[in-house]
Amino acid sequence: MFADTPAPPYYAVTFTSKHSENLDGYAGELEHILAIATRQPGYLGIETARGDDGLGITIVYYDSLEAIDGWRNNADHMEVKKKGRETWYDGYRLRIARVEKDSSFNR
Amino acid sequence: MFADTPAPPYYAVTFTSKHSENLDGYAGELEHILAIATRQPGYLGIETARGDDGLGITIVYYDSLEAIDGWRNNADHMEVKKKGRETWYDGYRLRIARVEKDSSFNR
Repeated sequence: MFADTPAPPYYAVTFTSKHSENLDGYAGELEHILAIATRQPGYLGIETARGDDGLGITIVYYDSLEAIDGWRNNADHMEVKKKGRETWYDGYRLRIARVEKDSSFNR
Repeated sequence: MFADTPAPPYYAVTFTSKHSENLDGYAGELEHILAIATRQPGYLGIETARGDDGLGITIVYYDSLEAIDGWRNNADHMEVKKKGRETWYDGYRLRIARVEKDSSFNR
């Protein structure tokens, strides 16, 4: 669902990915890697969506660039990233961005 | 699909939204509003995904905050935003972020 982020500034890691046709082992590793992402100190929240066309967007929020570096340099993360390139993804785009403004609406 | 953005820095507008059960008129207005977004000077690209649970993420990339302000202040945009709050969305989060680093993979 929505990430309950604090007032800006904070950081967003956006990951846009296209699944390949081979998702062997994906579900288990996804759970593992998301557990690492969310346990990382500085983690603020996550939002994710994937459509029927195989294109997915996940945004993970952190309080600092240091927190993001901790996540990127995690050994398990690097291992899963390798598998992702070899097997699960036809392509992806990763972006690290500083959130400067935000707004929200709830019915 | 993926947005072919230039080297950072550039800006991302992330829009995470939860559909309501009433999407009357949504498809036509979405097309209209996306046409405005993509014609805005400074537009760099768009990525979008919506899952079966009704949660969607759209990221629109622009070259500057000025370009984003142009889009936010567009009269048609403001009108559609009102309809979105009244009808199509149970909630949303909008964030404006400065992309500082990126990387990509293509098989």
